Amino acid sequence: MSTTPAHGADFDLVVLGGGSGGLAAAFRAAEHGARVALLEPGALGGTCVNVGCVPKKAMWLAADLAQKLVLARQLGFTLADATPVLDWPAFIAHRQRYIGNIHASYQQRLDAAGIALLATRGRLVASDTVACADGVRLRAPQILVATGGRPQRPDIPGADLGMDSDGFFRLVAAPGRVAIIGGGYIAVELAGVLQSLGSRVGLFVRGRGLLRGFDDDLTTQLVEDYRQHGVRAHFGSEVLSVRAQGNARVLRDADGNDSDAFDALVFATGRRPNSDGIGLEEVGVALGPRGHVVVDDFQRTGVAGIHALGDVTDRIELTPVAIAAARRLMDRLFGGQPGARLDYADIATVLFSHPPLGKVGMTEAEARQVHGDAVRVHRAGFRPMLHALADSPQRSLFKLVCVPEGGGEAARNQRVVGIHLLGEGADEILQGFAVALKRGITLADLHDTVAIHPTAAEEVVLMR
Amino acid sequence: MSTTPAHGADFDLVVLGGGSGGLAAAFRAAEHGARVALLEPGALGGTCVNVGCVPKKAMWLAADLAQKLVLARQLGFTLADATPVLDWPAFIAHRQRYIGNIHASYQQRLDAAGIALLATRGRLVASDTVACADGVRLRAPQILVATGGRPQRPDIPGADLGMDSDGFFRLVAAPGRVAIIGGGYIAVELAGVLQSLGSRVGLFVRGRGLLRGFDDDLTTQLVEDYRQHGVRAHFGSEVLSVRAQGNARVLRDADGNDSDAFDALVFATGRRPNSDGIGLEEVGVALGPRGHVVVDDFQRTGVAGIHALGDVTDRIELTPVAIAAARRLMDRLFGGQPGARLDYADIATVLFSHPPLGKVGMTEAEARQVHGDAVRVHRAGFRPMLHALADSPQRSLFKLVCVPEGGGEAARNQRVVGIHLLGEGADEILQGFAVALKRGITLADLHDTVAIHPTAAEEVVLMR
Repeated sequence: MSTTPAHGADFDLVVLGGGSGGLAAAFRAAEHGARVALLEPGALGGTCVNVGCVPKKAMWLAADLAQKLVLARQLGFTLADATPVLDWPAFIAHRQRYIGNIHASYQQRLDAAGIALLATRGRLVASDTVACADGVRLRAPQILVATGGRPQRPDIPGADLGMDSDGFFRLVAAPGRVAIIGGGYIAVELAGVLQSLGSRVGLFVRGRGLLRGFDDDLTTQLVEDYRQHGVRAHFGSEVLSVRAQGNARVLRDADGNDSDAFDALVFATGRRPNSDGIGLEEVGVALGPRGHVVVDDFQRTGVAGIHALGDVTDRIELTPVAIAAARRLMDRLFGGQPGARLDYADIATVLFSHPPLGKVGMTEAEARQVHGDAVRVHRAGFRPMLHALADSPQRSLFKLVCVPEGGGEAARNQRVVGIHLLGEGADEILQGFAVALKRGITLADLHDTVAIHPTAAEEVVLMR
Repeated sequence: MSTTPAHGADFDLVVLGGGSGGLAAAFRAAEHGARVALLEPGALGGTCVNVGCVPKKAMWLAADLAQKLVLARQLGFTLADATPVLDWPAFIAHRQRYIGNIHASYQQRLDAAGIALLATRGRLVASDTVACADGVRLRAPQILVATGGRPQRPDIPGADLGMDSDGFFRLVAAPGRVAIIGGGYIAVELAGVLQSLGSRVGLFVRGRGLLRGFDDDLTTQLVEDYRQHGVRAHFGSEVLSVRAQGNARVLRDADGNDSDAFDALVFATGRRPNSDGIGLEEVGVALGPRGHVVVDDFQRTGVAGIHALGDVTDRIELTPVAIAAARRLMDRLFGGQPGARLDYADIATVLFSHPPLGKVGMTEAEARQVHGDAVRVHRAGFRPMLHALADSPQRSLFKLVCVPEGGGEAARNQRVVGIHLLGEGADEILQGFAVALKRGITLADLHDTVAIHPTAAEEVVLMR
């Protein structure tokens, strides 16, 4: 059912940005009968499809295959090369064909849904009006800002001698020696991929550990895994400048020390919202201190009729979050579901490291801040069978964070508030447990579920 | 806390059988302070560790690596051989070392727990007395029968020309042409492993389909997957005799037709309980028509003080089921938990086919028998990213079986009664969803959980 458009409006909804969130909003609004215009000057699918999750996962799969080849050789498969050699251009052709298929599928679905796609940048000129680059004006009672974000480099001398994550996806070969600056998820993911595909990686991290927001026990073990795979991590290292040395790059830190020479340099130093130059402040939409659009629990900006979601806001920067928020917002605006909104609690996330790392709910540290000494922790450390067979040292570490329920202290009465998985398969194992945790489970619910043997996942229900 | 042993008894508990169930019972009873004797004439770990789940999973991992090598080559990795070649003796050395480590770990834990391990076969001579092969008698107020099962061949001429699944685990090379007789999980698992490791497999199935008890949509697709991998399945084929033809074997079916010649023949025609020759009927324990020990919901036989569990009973023949039943029984007998028993409802199971197949809860057919036309089915068919990148045809098929909850018919009000997964990762994905299903979830609970992207598991929460 469509709302009646305001008098003179061209559309019911104009969406700025054809990334995952914008597309999901457009499709859902159209399902509800709304007339939709979608403005996207670049490639459909935004960061996720073009320079994010999708090519990242593709590279992770290649890196995972490289590690599997090493295991296969140890286990008795005849392989010519001790170190797997990947023909990058060949692989990238597969990767880009896959992405091309996604573009084509989006285009088809937009056509089928009757959504007007305008390959142009839009700018808000009033709370119900967007001006296209060519001057054409579109009016709609609802405007959605879903313009996403982009990588950000530090403002230091020589920053242009490095690339950002967008540049990583333009690589056509593994650099011999590569420095990655950053300690967040992008830095860790790119470090794992490059090391597995033949680079020698140095990781320069300002803080004392990796991956704030993940459980410390697991990130500590991941650092050790990376060390064993050859990644050299430098903690407490603030890079203040970069300089060229022939074709190589050398980093200088805050103590004045120079790094070894690297063939390539990747900045994974955060991202910033695409909120500039699209008229947001001019029409009265408030931005936060780092430029994010400020929204409430219903994705509302302070301006009636203008909503925002995804990476341009300061919520969790994950594709499925943007998609889920978009669908609920459209259900609310056009689907007759006035209460629909995304619940941002207990959203699971997986890091495609080697091995992968997943979390849902509270870390032990977060739980202790709320529940103090009442927190109970259960751990399972083990070698997955494939690694045990090959006598590879890689271990898995799974961890449950629980708090007593109903005042009791008995093991049968612990509410599970956090599930943390590091190890082969963690990426696929977590989703079902995320459903269970969100539904609300106790340790007894895990124990009452019979294990599936032999798997890694069964370790989650067998922890005591 | 130990119960007081009956006057003159040597132990609190005598366990017949050192498989997974018997071991789990012994360990849990010892934890509760019971004095335990465990009788096992063969290798510790029973079927699962020695000729079941563990070596099967090891072979599956090798077969999975073989398939990954094919994909790796398609994606640009330099590999000498178009067809992966496995040095079986080298791999089997790894496999048997892994199994040897499990034996050593069991032995260590038995020693640490003070459990008396007797490497002998026991026979019941009274409801509280077991005679060892050497004539020594052990008395205990509680006796647990956990002797497991063994493969069974059909009673046809030439049956001795084939091997059973125990024999499969003695193979030291992939047979060139191998016939597998059977349509159950063992037949399907061995067919997948052998085909992936270089054999040409013919599968002879008496019925019209594979894998009774799994959802038809998924088994139909699995048959097609196997066909694409080169397995030749013959349905409606009742093998009535086998004969040698030089070194080869030829099968003759009920219609009098001869098969092609095979280099090896595997019977995967069911298993039977190890309930013979251990004095069960002599002390009054009732056996079912196929020789299984008859037990009630508390694992009780009709004879006070004698319990049974695992494959010697006619419950679900899965290692984790035997273990879970054993632990609960010991909690009841020695742990002061009088109500403890295993709930046999909604037990998840995974078949290590290629790709794996998992289920928890009702199939569509089962649900329709109970709920008729009220049943709602949701499907997701897709190519996992690795296969899409390599342009491999392998597809995944996930399926939810739901029934309206609370009388409503709306999508937000469907109780999930069955989850069925066929595809890469299904083995690891299922466990968490099994927890959720057993806890009780609706379709809305799935939709309210944000997806983890890009994974296969997310397809379960995105089905509409």
